Amino acid sequence: MTKIVVIGAGAAGTTAALWAKKTDRKCEVVLINREPYPEYSRCGLPYTISKIIPDFSNLIEHEPAWYESFVKIDLRLETEVIDVDSKAKTVKIKNLKNGQEETISYDKLIIATGSHPVAPPIEGIKEKKGVYFLRTLKDAMDLEAAAQKAKNAVVIGAGLIGVEAAENLVEKGLKVAIVEFLPSLLPLMIDPDMAELVEEEMKKHGIEVYTNTAAKAVIGGEKVEKVLIECRETKETKELPADLVLIGAGVRPYTEIAQKAGVQLGTTKYIKVNEKCETNIPDIYSAGDCTEYPDFVTGEPTPQGMGTIAVRMGKVCGINAAGGEAKMPKGVLLTRITKIFDLQVAAVGPTLAQLERAGIKPVIGKITGSSKPGYFPGGKLIRIKIFSDEKGRILGAQIVGYEDVHQKINVIAAAMQSGMTVYDLEWLETCYAPASCPTWDVLTLVAEPVIKKIEKKR
Amino acid sequence: MTKIVVIGAGAAGTTAALWAKKTDRKCEVVLINREPYPEYSRCGLPYTISKIIPDFSNLIEHEPAWYESFVKIDLRLETEVIDVDSKAKTVKIKNLKNGQEETISYDKLIIATGSHPVAPPIEGIKEKKGVYFLRTLKDAMDLEAAAQKAKNAVVIGAGLIGVEAAENLVEKGLKVAIVEFLPSLLPLMIDPDMAELVEEEMKKHGIEVYTNTAAKAVIGGEKVEKVLIECRETKETKELPADLVLIGAGVRPYTEIAQKAGVQLGTTKYIKVNEKCETNIPDIYSAGDCTEYPDFVTGEPTPQGMGTIAVRMGKVCGINAAGGEAKMPKGVLLTRITKIFDLQVAAVGPTLAQLERAGIKPVIGKITGSSKPGYFPGGKLIRIKIFSDEKGRILGAQIVGYEDVHQKINVIAAAMQSGMTVYDLEWLETCYAPASCPTWDVLTLVAEPVIKKIEKKR
Repeated sequence: MTKIVVIGAGAAGTTAALWAKKTDRKCEVVLINREPYPEYSRCGLPYTISKIIPDFSNLIEHEPAWYESFVKIDLRLETEVIDVDSKAKTVKIKNLKNGQEETISYDKLIIATGSHPVAPPIEGIKEKKGVYFLRTLKDAMDLEAAAQKAKNAVVIGAGLIGVEAAENLVEKGLKVAIVEFLPSLLPLMIDPDMAELVEEEMKKHGIEVYTNTAAKAVIGGEKVEKVLIECRETKETKELPADLVLIGAGVRPYTEIAQKAGVQLGTTKYIKVNEKCETNIPDIYSAGDCTEYPDFVTGEPTPQGMGTIAVRMGKVCGINAAGGEAKMPKGVLLTRITKIFDLQVAAVGPTLAQLERAGIKPVIGKITGSSKPGYFPGGKLIRIKIFSDEKGRILGAQIVGYEDVHQKINVIAAAMQSGMTVYDLEWLETCYAPASCPTWDVLTLVAEPVIKKIEKKR
Repeated sequence: MTKIVVIGAGAAGTTAALWAKKTDRKCEVVLINREPYPEYSRCGLPYTISKIIPDFSNLIEHEPAWYESFVKIDLRLETEVIDVDSKAKTVKIKNLKNGQEETISYDKLIIATGSHPVAPPIEGIKEKKGVYFLRTLKDAMDLEAAAQKAKNAVVIGAGLIGVEAAENLVEKGLKVAIVEFLPSLLPLMIDPDMAELVEEEMKKHGIEVYTNTAAKAVIGGEKVEKVLIECRETKETKELPADLVLIGAGVRPYTEIAQKAGVQLGTTKYIKVNEKCETNIPDIYSAGDCTEYPDFVTGEPTPQGMGTIAVRMGKVCGINAAGGEAKMPKGVLLTRITKIFDLQVAAVGPTLAQLERAGIKPVIGKITGSSKPGYFPGGKLIRIKIFSDEKGRILGAQIVGYEDVHQKINVIAAAMQSGMTVYDLEWLETCYAPASCPTWDVLTLVAEPVIKKIEKKR
């Protein structure tokens, strides 16, 4: 009977545990979590602020009892792994409630320790009350309680967490400003030209947007009252009123336990795994936000930090640890989506800046169209940008619009994963009906300008 | 200077004309249409009944003057082609307004004559007033005028035209019954088990549904008053009140002109073309509803009759006729979509019955899920069914649900067109966000039962 120990009950770890049992019902699975809750949806946290998700319990996938009784997983909550011995194949765990320590053995170990937010070097953010992060259910509870009493919020960092939190703070009734160090919103997801629509949408809903701007200090007495910001170009400064500050400035992986086990980190300092999600140490797997994985397009290791990839890696780990066979695709596409008020924003593959950093100068196509045929009422704006290499291989895409964006990015994801070129995309037989979408979907139309440019270069 | 004559200004013909000019601005293009209007959206016609599309003019893509002045196309409306001489390379045309005939020469001829509805053998449908078809703009005008005064409508045939017209007659305020000879609704698009949701949706909106039922006679004085139907199983008959009858019982191609030119018809009696949309006669191309094309999955010639394929074939014809180079994909997927009230219905590839008729016994997966993550409010039911061969090659899919169905079917279309297997689909990196779609989209989940069945057979 294989004994599998999983460290971390986030999306990756829990998926691994469940797939291990699914693969071999007889294997023994211990699922260890530092937090007092079993798996919950981390991505859903911003929506608890506005009560769009009405209760924190909505986010919890299954009650603790479910693990024991339905899937026969030994779930250990509020339990920390304090050491690993990869030669003896044991982990030392500590019950955080009573301080008791225990050493348990494993045949296979799955490290899914996740990541934690970083505190950027902003004066006062560690000292002043009223500064929040949004990573755990506890974080969300604290933030939601604070938002009940707050009037002015400043969000520092316009990544996914930042923009989603900003929307939900507005929905809650707060006056919100968002501050982004880089020149445009969602900078790791979409290019500045595509981010314009996002900025418009945020401003339309009353959010003050400060891009290319550094947050320098959090000002106040014991509690935050203002945030001092400085435009990186003009060096002009401004004080934004704030009784609530949310930091969304990126994450770092939890790798201490992995390193104690002798697990090698990759060039990005995240845990390195192969297609089977094996680390360099026999019988130790890793999955989720603590890992890096090769980018599908550039081949370069990338900290992926996405729920979709976490569950896929978790599935691979679980199946393999339980004696099955599973492999990740050779690279991750980073297919990503968010919704900001009414605007949907999606991307797949690297941004232009990321491609250029990898030494790739793509051919670019970009068009704006409608989600429905011109003659049918209610069609909504949709903008798509696509990258290809000089042979037509699709390298990435970004889509921003008010309808259908998420499934359209999935079409490009399928096209990329299967090696389709823009020549294939041009002739893709998409569906058409008056009330649904046009005969030539923007998905196919966007191939035309790319092909034109490729042919010109020949 | 190449002179291109296009017969038929529907989607295929007009697209061909426009792409010819786009490919070679100097070529001369004559676009001939029997109807008094240039290209309009045929698929939009049902929506003029309910005024969801408020005016007939909304359906017309461009005013006649636009062709002359903007794209320099010689548009001849109300003009019929009465003969073709493919040796002399001339067509004889007749102006229907003044009866004048003219012979014009061509270097390249594009036949896009389309198709016309068939009148099934139902007693009285040719004699009685109040019986309508819905194929041309004129048909729609007549139908809309009749619907203004009518109270009870019977729709005969539950294909796309039938179900869309039924919805719009209900929206107009009529009491509607729909009669389908085969055992389920949309029988050429989805299997009976998937059609159940369509039937529910129609009934929910007050439509009486009679499947497996023959319409035997249209009864009344000069004008229709009732439709006599007979259940094919029980032979029970019933008279449905009807002051308006709409026939949506399939189409036949216009091939007389093609045959006069010596153009060969295929096994289906539609015009046969190759990947370049060339017929057997040099310099004569054909596109759209009058043609057959190999099915992507079975390889068998199939009358496709779809707007999406019409414009793609039109593009191929136009480019090739003007001296460029373009090719259709090797087969058509028949990616199709419709919306019936709130329900979206989509399919790609053959139905189960069509596969079985081609001697293929597919492996089937079917699941029901939600468009959004379970914890996020507002997720909607979505059901997906997928076919694969025993190696995992995807042979088709059907999706029925209340959200996102059209773009999901496009994902499967991309997967099929690029040769993805269910094994690839299982690991497709779809996007995920709380407000958009789950970490495991039904698109990927549906691969699991198929793979399980395939593995069991091994």
